Amino acid sequence: MASNDPKLEEMSEVACRRYLSQHQVGRIAIMVDDHPEIFPVNYRFTDGSIVIRVGPGLKLNAIANNPLVAFEIDGTNEERHNGWSVLVVGRTEEVTDPDERVRLMEQGDPAPWPGGEKDHVVLIHAEQVSGRYLLQHRT
Amino acid sequence: MASNDPKLEEMSEVACRRYLSQHQVGRIAIMVDDHPEIFPVNYRFTDGSIVIRVGPGLKLNAIANNPLVAFEIDGTNEERHNGWSVLVVGRTEEVTDPDERVRLMEQGDPAPWPGGEKDHVVLIHAEQVSGRYLLQHRT
Repeated sequence: MASNDPKLEEMSEVACRRYLSQHQVGRIAIMVDDHPEIFPVNYRFTDGSIVIRVGPGLKLNAIANNPLVAFEIDGTNEERHNGWSVLVVGRTEEVTDPDERVRLMEQGDPAPWPGGEKDHVVLIHAEQVSGRYLLQHRT
Repeated sequence: MASNDPKLEEMSEVACRRYLSQHQVGRIAIMVDDHPEIFPVNYRFTDGSIVIRVGPGLKLNAIANNPLVAFEIDGTNEERHNGWSVLVVGRTEEVTDPDERVRLMEQGDPAPWPGGEKDHVVLIHAEQVSGRYLLQHRT
C-alpha cells in the first residue's frame, strides 16, 4: 500500500556534479552590506568550478568584499511534492587572464539573458558540494 | 522583424507580492558561520510575511544568530531564455505564541515535504521586496 511519507535523501557528490553539468541556470547568494541576497544567474560548470559573468556594480563589489558565496540549483514539482537541490559553497575569483577567459568561454559561455556589459568572468570554486533528493516514496 | 535582444525589467511591488502569493516553494539564504547557504523551503505568504517551518538545528540556529535573511522565488524557461525573480530581504522572527501559530497555520500550513519534526514556525518580515522580469522581446 502506498504511503504518503516523503523522505529526504542525501545525494552523492558524483550525482551533484552531474546535476551541475546538466543545468545552466542557478542562484548565487552573496553578502550585501550586512545581509545575504539571492540572484538568479546563468552559469556553466567547467573544470569543477561554476563560471558566471557579471557586470560592474553591486554583485562584483559584493563578491570582491565577501568572496565566500553560495550557489544553488534545484528542481521541484509542486504537484508531486518532490524535487532535488544541489548547494555549492566556495570562494569566488575573477578571471583576468585573457587566455584563460578565452579558454573558459570556448568551453561554454554563460551569457546572461539580459545581455549588457557583463564582461567580468567569475569562477566559484566548488569547495563544498552537497545535494539532497526529496522523494515521496512508497514504504 | 523579431529581435533577439532580451531585456531586464523591474517588477512592481504589487506584482512581486502577487507572485509571492501564487507560489509555495522558494529559497532562503542564511548565514552559516562566515558564509551564506541557500536552502529550498516550502512557504506561505501570509499577512505580508513569508511563513516557513523549520526543525531544530542548523537553520534555526543560523536564523537566531543572523536574523536578517534573503528569500527568493523565480521561474525561468531555459529554452526561451526568459523568466522572472522576486527577492525578499527581511528579519526573521520565531512565532512562539500558540494562538498566533494556530492562526497562521489555519491560513496555510507550509508543511515541509520531507515531514519530520519541523515545528518551529518562523516569519520572514518582508522589509525589502523587489523583482525583475527577464523578457526576450521584440523591438
